[in-house]
Amino acid sequence: MSNDALADLAAQLPDDTLLTGGDAVEPYRRDRALDPAAGVPLTVARPRTTHEVQTIVRWASDHGIPLVPRGAGTGLSGGATAVDGGIVLSTERMREIRIDRGTRTVTVQPGLLNAELKAAVAAEGLWYPPDPASFEICSIGGNIATNAGGLCCVKYGVTADYVLGLEVVLADGRALRLGGPLIKDVAGLNLLKLFIGSEGTLGVVTEITLRLLPAPPAPRIVAAWFASIEDAAAAIAEISTTIRPSMLEYMDRTCIDSVEDVLALGMDRDAAALVLGGSDDLDPDGRDIAFMTDAFMRHGAYDVVETSPEEGAALAGARRAAIPAVERRGRLLLSDVGVPLPRLRELLLGISRLEAEHEVTIAMLAHAGDGNTHPLVVFDPADDEAAERAELAYGRIMSLAISLGGTISGEHGVGRMKRPWLRDQVGDDVLEVAGRIKHALDPAGILNPGAIFA
Amino acid sequence: MSNDALADLAAQLPDDTLLTGGDAVEPYRRDRALDPAAGVPLTVARPRTTHEVQTIVRWASDHGIPLVPRGAGTGLSGGATAVDGGIVLSTERMREIRIDRGTRTVTVQPGLLNAELKAAVAAEGLWYPPDPASFEICSIGGNIATNAGGLCCVKYGVTADYVLGLEVVLADGRALRLGGPLIKDVAGLNLLKLFIGSEGTLGVVTEITLRLLPAPPAPRIVAAWFASIEDAAAAIAEISTTIRPSMLEYMDRTCIDSVEDVLALGMDRDAAALVLGGSDDLDPDGRDIAFMTDAFMRHGAYDVVETSPEEGAALAGARRAAIPAVERRGRLLLSDVGVPLPRLRELLLGISRLEAEHEVTIAMLAHAGDGNTHPLVVFDPADDEAAERAELAYGRIMSLAISLGGTISGEHGVGRMKRPWLRDQVGDDVLEVAGRIKHALDPAGILNPGAIFA
Ligand SMILES: Cc1cc2nc3c(=O)[nH]c(=O)nc-3n(C[C@H](O)[C@H](O)[C@H](O)COP(=O)(O)OP(=O)(O)OC[C@H]3O[C@@H](n4cnc5c(N)ncnc54)[C@H](O)[C@@H]3O)c2cc1C
Ligand SMILES: Cc1cc2nc3c(=O)[nH]c(=O)nc-3n(C[C@H](O)[C@H](O)[C@H](O)COP(=O)(O)OP(=O)(O)OC[C@H]3O[C@@H](n4cnc5c(N)ncnc54)[C@H](O)[C@@H]3O)c2cc1C
Repeated sequence: MSNDALADLAAQLPDDTLLTGGDAVEPYRRDRALDPAAGVPLTVARPRTTHEVQTIVRWASDHGIPLVPRGAGTGLSGGATAVDGGIVLSTERMREIRIDRGTRTVTVQPGLLNAELKAAVAAEGLWYPPDPASFEICSIGGNIATNAGGLCCVKYGVTADYVLGLEVVLADGRALRLGGPLIKDVAGLNLLKLFIGSEGTLGVVTEITLRLLPAPPAPRIVAAWFASIEDAAAAIAEISTTIRPSMLEYMDRTCIDSVEDVLALGMDRDAAALVLGGSDDLDPDGRDIAFMTDAFMRHGAYDVVETSPEEGAALAGARRAAIPAVERRGRLLLSDVGVPLPRLRELLLGISRLEAEHEVTIAMLAHAGDGNTHPLVVFDPADDEAAERAELAYGRIMSLAISLGGTISGEHGVGRMKRPWLRDQVGDDVLEVAGRIKHALDPAGILNPGAIFA
Repeated sequence: MSNDALADLAAQLPDDTLLTGGDAVEPYRRDRALDPAAGVPLTVARPRTTHEVQTIVRWASDHGIPLVPRGAGTGLSGGATAVDGGIVLSTERMREIRIDRGTRTVTVQPGLLNAELKAAVAAEGLWYPPDPASFEICSIGGNIATNAGGLCCVKYGVTADYVLGLEVVLADGRALRLGGPLIKDVAGLNLLKLFIGSEGTLGVVTEITLRLLPAPPAPRIVAAWFASIEDAAAAIAEISTTIRPSMLEYMDRTCIDSVEDVLALGMDRDAAALVLGGSDDLDPDGRDIAFMTDAFMRHGAYDVVETSPEEGAALAGARRAAIPAVERRGRLLLSDVGVPLPRLRELLLGISRLEAEHEVTIAMLAHAGDGNTHPLVVFDPADDEAAERAELAYGRIMSLAISLGGTISGEHGVGRMKRPWLRDQVGDDVLEVAGRIKHALDPAGILNPGAIFA
């Protein structure tokens, strides 16, 4: 890459769009997976408009330079890991928002944070449900690109369920408009859904139209403390396949302990697991709350309490704080495996076995009602041997999930960190067909090379 | 096509799999759109297993013979119109069903009728929400291929929202397995959603795993009678963008009158429009029912009644009976246009104008809460001039919807009947990209040629 070519790109963009030089690009090299293989990008581009994105993507295509789209960099799969000599296209300056009450939708640029969107629509009495635990720090564009989940998804669905329209810049620089503020639209192939969860490998999302709901009723939350993770898993499987909780979350002892270190809420550090069950229907008899309470007790919880609204919010906050809290104990390898609900028990037990076998700590938290768990392998990065054992355990967690009919990723995406296990899950044919679609849309492989696709 | 080749196919299949000859294939030439351009197929294949489907598709590919997948033939867009000299692959014998309580899912072959599935899961206290008005006569495979909607979709979403797993036979005969009984799975490109709504142009769906819910609470239903369609539209737009009704349906005078001819429920034949609003939340105060009642009255309904459960069911039944009832008045050209909710009023008024201008009858019914309407152009097929005017009006309805930022199809699909208008809606670039995906998956264009793609 000659400096001339880069100067040529800079000349087509507002003055301070491009960052170059070691220090300037350093903060854009990794997402929260801290991929050790992160490259050093040629430049970081921070466009403000779709037109500027098109200019950058066209230039990348013309010069055969790889381009990695980046939202807020909170990804946990190395999807936004920089590529040596490539461009990182950061959406941090693309933050416009337009609420349309008439259609009860909101249209945003991709760099807006999930929390900013939630707050803006809440000010109008509206609600955007998807709530990744990282909602205060992740972008909507990143949520689209990973099809992010969260705590309320067990009842309200994932990001894809709220996307009505997208503008996407393709590898050749064209901006495609898909959908709009229409609730139902089946005219032609469903390209909209194909781009959701494509992790920046098919195009750069530059505008998003989302469906909103009225604010939900306040939830009631039951907290159940278990001495056995098996019992907790059995209760979860029964609840999720019988009623429709608005939340069903899980934290194990390591998570509780780590969060307690930070937040000091007075949680029982000796519990094997804490399960939080929420219900936000309007039933005056609270049948779902009663059902969950009963199920927790029947399955051996040693303490089951319906929380006050403040306590409930504090415990949900504790759940959200779990990843950063565990991160204080060492470097993390973050898994995101999911299984069919009846296999949750086997997954939890299997992971305990891996913990012992590989002599690593694996903290466990989960959007349990969806069968989607986050085993966090904790290790000391200074200890090479420990790092190796952690690496091994990380892979075996995915193999275990696959052997239980599960997935290597419920919501974080494959990125670069999980790519080696994708074939084991989906098989050769699915990979081959996905590869054909990738090739049809990005024949030169400019967009986020190394993510999902080898 | 030589008879030898067909004999060769027959030899690979159970004895009575293939139908040939004019009379035998006649019932498989058209769906409910009654496409006048329907061809005469070489044969109708009625496989029972995925393996048999693979044999048929491979044979079609080897011989370059077009293959039209067919469910129950209730489609309204000519998606299942037979092609001259091609194969119609009917799924009518593929009707196995397996309920899995452990994962609260059901796995079915594609030929099972929606009503059969609903009944089987209801017997276990479970619920499969998507409810096209045709649910008693359409297949699940057809529902997947069109991403069918229905009455409850305004709250509970469309077919795609319930599909967790698919098996699809590709043009080259490979059977692809996508997803499974997992609630969340983002590993790799979302091929699953791409196949949903692809109208048989990308593959033949041979197995489907669907997410189920617990049975919903009984709905309360309010019926509102309007003297003005504009007022009805205004009430609908306000309701759908303020609360979450479980049903919000619309019928105009022609529909009411036609249904009354058949069912004699005592509906007011002089009403300009009937709107049915449902709510199935558990609110003992019935706030959503009160809100709808108030909105209907504020917007000028001359009669608003909360129905008894029996009356409510009868009126919902009337709504479902509307298409066949109107069909008794003549041949239909069935539209399926959708608009953003604030434009519903303009759409209804515009269609009234088209009715006058083209001297045709256009009966109007709608899944109104989704902005998805079905203007039914009624004409006498024996009257060539009337048929021409109807044809013209049918096209102008789509152009009107497009001009209002809408879609030519909210739920029935593009098929062959609406293909000429697809470009006007989505534009050259979207068509070109969709074409690349079609080509990547079906390079020889064997699968349902003429549907969606030219
Ligand atoms: C503490 C913590 C808790 C978390 N909890 C959850 C959770 O509950 N649920 C969940 O789903 N995730 C969770 N995550 C993961 C992460 O926040 C999500 O994956 C989020 O969607 C990433 O958004 P981002 O803006 O940070 O994207 P990035 O990390 O910047 O990028 C993520 C991926 O999206 C691509 N991308 C970003 N923007 C665009 C764009 N505009 N166009 C095309 N591609 C783009 C990138 O190339 C990359 O592949 C958590 C992360 C942390 C640190
Ligand atoms: C009275 C009436 C009311 C209706 N109401 C509604 C409604 O409320 N909502 C709604 O969405 N629709 C409605 N429809 C339309 C129709 O019932 C739906 O489109 C339905 O999904 C079609 O199912 P089918 O089995 O009849 O499919 P078919 O008509 O046989 O085929 C439809 C399309 O799907 C393809 N296809 C079928 N099976 C497969 C398969 N296994 N693999 C791949 N492709 C396949 C065909 O090639 C074709 O393109 C109504 C129809 C009628 C007659």
